[in-house]
Amino acid sequence: MDFKPYIRTIPDYPKKGIQFRDVTTLFGNPRAFRAAVDALVQPYAGVRIDKIAGIEARGFILGGAVAHQLSTGFVPVRKKGKLPYKTIHEEYDLEYGKDQVEIHVDAVKPGEHVVVVDDLIATGGTAFAAIKLLERAGAKVVGCLFVIDLPELGGADKIRALGKEVTTLVEFEGE
Amino acid sequence: MDFKPYIRTIPDYPKKGIQFRDVTTLFGNPRAFRAAVDALVQPYAGVRIDKIAGIEARGFILGGAVAHQLSTGFVPVRKKGKLPYKTIHEEYDLEYGKDQVEIHVDAVKPGEHVVVVDDLIATGGTAFAAIKLLERAGAKVVGCLFVIDLPELGGADKIRALGKEVTTLVEFEGE
Repeated sequence: MDFKPYIRTIPDYPKKGIQFRDVTTLFGNPRAFRAAVDALVQPYAGVRIDKIAGIEARGFILGGAVAHQLSTGFVPVRKKGKLPYKTIHEEYDLEYGKDQVEIHVDAVKPGEHVVVVDDLIATGGTAFAAIKLLERAGAKVVGCLFVIDLPELGGADKIRALGKEVTTLVEFEGE
Repeated sequence: MDFKPYIRTIPDYPKKGIQFRDVTTLFGNPRAFRAAVDALVQPYAGVRIDKIAGIEARGFILGGAVAHQLSTGFVPVRKKGKLPYKTIHEEYDLEYGKDQVEIHVDAVKPGEHVVVVDDLIATGGTAFAAIKLLERAGAKVVGCLFVIDLPELGGADKIRALGKEVTTLVEFEGE
């Protein structure tokens, strides 16, 4: 399936010059949503995966579906201050300033095989922080799944350089 | 399956006197997560459902899995200012003050059958606002799914009084 027609582009959002790629139109379409999940998990058929780590917030929607499809547990990677129990966190750089992501200290067990899921990979800052966090907690991150890749921003290549498998469905370049 | 042992209780979170029911421990367990999704969708086997509306943020995890299981589309019901396209919103009362939820104007089509999904129902303010919003957009909300019910707070009964089916898996009362 060609997923691109299901993704809505919103010009100048959240600020002038940014073309925002909106996956809600893909998620809202029953056939496209199911086909996207099926295509993303395809490299993991028959592979040991214990948990899907979904990145807040759109990675929760996709990650919930992927975890269900693979019959794994689901771990939320959240923005600061959202998780109720003891957490560990990892900082990452934004265009201006820094942000952080958190997981519960007991979100993964040492040696568990984890796949990170989000809707989109751009510079990869958040995904990179999620990987570091999960590996600090003792998990082995085997790969990452994203619907959309913005290859010019280099995030997917940066993650592949860590030896992780990266699966994406659609690329947008300077459009 | 008895789901209660999979839910972690965090005392005095987010403030003194509140027993916070943490579903991340249930979501993290592969068997419990799958069994919960299977039990929640069971009333909808063979019933027409076009879309699952998941409430931010834990309702995204569960709703993504439910939408995948039922082969429907997924619609995010988000907090104010998070959706990139044109939205409609609905206010609801908090303990102190008000909040609002939003959907994209084109999130549902008139006549679509929708089920609302969240992790927990307490007073039902958010779920009630989500139902009103989806019905203003022309959808028919046929039911709501929650892992946890706090029956003393009356939210589930309030939604049943609207003629909607409400499915929950675990009840906590003054514990």
